[in-house]
Amino acid sequence: MKTLWSERYAQRTHTMQGSAVRELLKLTEKPDIISFAGGMPAPELFPVKEFSDATRKVLAESGKQALQYGPTEGCRKLRELIARHTARYGIKVGTENILITTASQQALDLLGKIFVNPGDRIVVEQPTYLGALQAWNMYQARYVSVPLDEEGMRTDLLEEAMRTGPKFLYALPNFQNPTGVTLSEERRRRIIELADHYGVPIVEDDPYGQLRFEGEHLTPLFVLDSRTRAMQQDGSNVVYLSTFSKTLAPGIRLGWIVAPAEVIQKLVTAKQGTDLHTSTLVQMVAHEISRGGFLDKHAHQVRSVYKARRDTILAALDRNMPEGVHWTRPLGGLFTWVTLPGRIDAADLLREAVEEGVAFVPGAAFHADGSGRNTMRLNFSYAPPELIEEGIRRLGGVLKRQLAAVACLQA
Amino acid sequence: MKTLWSERYAQRTHTMQGSAVRELLKLTEKPDIISFAGGMPAPELFPVKEFSDATRKVLAESGKQALQYGPTEGCRKLRELIARHTARYGIKVGTENILITTASQQALDLLGKIFVNPGDRIVVEQPTYLGALQAWNMYQARYVSVPLDEEGMRTDLLEEAMRTGPKFLYALPNFQNPTGVTLSEERRRRIIELADHYGVPIVEDDPYGQLRFEGEHLTPLFVLDSRTRAMQQDGSNVVYLSTFSKTLAPGIRLGWIVAPAEVIQKLVTAKQGTDLHTSTLVQMVAHEISRGGFLDKHAHQVRSVYKARRDTILAALDRNMPEGVHWTRPLGGLFTWVTLPGRIDAADLLREAVEEGVAFVPGAAFHADGSGRNTMRLNFSYAPPELIEEGIRRLGGVLKRQLAAVACLQA
Repeated sequence: MKTLWSERYAQRTHTMQGSAVRELLKLTEKPDIISFAGGMPAPELFPVKEFSDATRKVLAESGKQALQYGPTEGCRKLRELIARHTARYGIKVGTENILITTASQQALDLLGKIFVNPGDRIVVEQPTYLGALQAWNMYQARYVSVPLDEEGMRTDLLEEAMRTGPKFLYALPNFQNPTGVTLSEERRRRIIELADHYGVPIVEDDPYGQLRFEGEHLTPLFVLDSRTRAMQQDGSNVVYLSTFSKTLAPGIRLGWIVAPAEVIQKLVTAKQGTDLHTSTLVQMVAHEISRGGFLDKHAHQVRSVYKARRDTILAALDRNMPEGVHWTRPLGGLFTWVTLPGRIDAADLLREAVEEGVAFVPGAAFHADGSGRNTMRLNFSYAPPELIEEGIRRLGGVLKRQLAAVACLQA
Repeated sequence: MKTLWSERYAQRTHTMQGSAVRELLKLTEKPDIISFAGGMPAPELFPVKEFSDATRKVLAESGKQALQYGPTEGCRKLRELIARHTARYGIKVGTENILITTASQQALDLLGKIFVNPGDRIVVEQPTYLGALQAWNMYQARYVSVPLDEEGMRTDLLEEAMRTGPKFLYALPNFQNPTGVTLSEERRRRIIELADHYGVPIVEDDPYGQLRFEGEHLTPLFVLDSRTRAMQQDGSNVVYLSTFSKTLAPGIRLGWIVAPAEVIQKLVTAKQGTDLHTSTLVQMVAHEISRGGFLDKHAHQVRSVYKARRDTILAALDRNMPEGVHWTRPLGGLFTWVTLPGRIDAADLLREAVEEGVAFVPGAAFHADGSGRNTMRLNFSYAPPELIEEGIRRLGGVLKRQLAAVACLQA
């Protein structure tokens, strides 16, 4: 059905893709499917009672404020809480360095809006977070992909990418989405060194940092950079993003950006035209829940549950995957990344898997250049252990059948 | 303090203006100022208890769903409720024609994102809603302004604007922001006629439609258009926007777009990269509050309070404004629009008014071409009647002093 609108879409929509992930999230809504797709937290861990109590308290004490328009920067108290929270990771900033966002996806959009001209290059890990590509595709970005291995972005290949004159580098150093891989301390330092040498600023996306199951927290790029330029106050060339989505709940849509005050001011003006401000009610409720140490206590519980699920999925993969299949062993977060034999197409595998009641995300969507057809992302935070077991068993079965069929065709 | 970011802003930010309105909203935060600035609802009318009860119920019954990721289109139940709600105004659509947005500001941003190429023209009322200009400036739109009078956009001047090949026409037919003016039924029909003739689609922004104090609801452009093209199902060339901000509360950031299904699909893909989806919790709470007729009951109460405040401000203007000052007599909504003698600059007036403890928005910001220096927007929904009286008295005093000073200088 054509309307006058049909012929009027802006040029930037031409690269817009009906997202595979979106269609897949729909699959996960079917109650009988075992889903390794999506990046969904375990709903049984949501602090439902705390949300209920906090909302009652906020509305009783400050209802008029909570339901009214608020400042675009975000509520001061929440920004103060975030400043205290990030200080523990060495990110020591003031409220003028913090912007509250409608979760991290909006942070990515706003960064694209104020920094990306059509044709600008962004250095990304290969594979990288699909949502970042979606956000920046709308600003007609191009990508320079740097492969990663078990220690994160391959810094031996980074220098060439830095020489292409990119607008910025985008990295997820902790338990990366989609691979679960953590950037090693040595490579962090190397990235900062190269970024400094080539004058390329960095966007550090850290949604999962609090979900480390084992080992020590590694130094954020933001902190490494500030050290190298200790002489310049407020001089970080790293913009740092995080979110309440993986510690409290994604359904509230609440995250934040840490950046130089000058960048925050530009982001604020951009956000004003984008959604004016993030829900005052949601901000005040999240503040009420988080103050007094609940955030840490709750993150501790989430970590212990996800760690058990990671152990379950890794053991199940060991037992059920045929030879020639490889996967990452994440130290935290929500995902493991599976590389299949080269002759298997994960999209074909998905079609059969769904018939067996199992879903995952084929890896090609996380590759800016469309490669990675024989890869897939498995989420282990959502399904309980017994379903993880069963799901991986079924997935192993489907894969073995496909391998046999391919062998048969080739014979 | 320069960082690597400082030299990297995208070209589209060059037209970005540190918003006068934003600075003004900060002024209204001072407790002792009488504010006619902002577009803030009366906080004492917020249904605080209903929000508290609804949140408790939603979390108790569906906490896991309310705190989890949700579909980008929005929660089905809320979209169904909106479809029923808009049907009463003759806008008869299915859920596939409705997208939930992070309030109307996001609707404007998403429309810019999918439709506006740099340099595209948009036909707007002069003056028009500042937030729309802010949203579309980021997509480097240009504007063709059509003056309005007491009956709304001057359709006798519209034909010339339509001949410039605009991407679309943007109108606020009911109790327009900033003027409070309502587009007459005759001009609505003429706009549809011209839009049809020149093949220009329309964005109809209707945040205040439910806040009519007197007289009959006029036919939405959306409905007039559907009638002229009755043969084409789903064929409306009008995209219709509305919000819960003025009926329930702005602090929840919740609105919606009605559009052809094809346009909704593009908007959904754009929204996915923008903020993934609007807060599930907020959507479910708004649905819980609104079902069962509360929205109408509450809107009735809001109307009666705002009507009394409009009567108060108009009477106070009659009493306190010197000769040569004119203002609109709105039939609903939140604003009246004041035209001062040509030699008065409203920005100068504001500086003095703030010293007297009164704030308003100078009108130039609502003019795409920067004209309108001798105009101002007065909000009458926020301050209680006794403060409206006092505020207009003070404003009249400041204005008389300025007029005397100007006369003195000219003598």
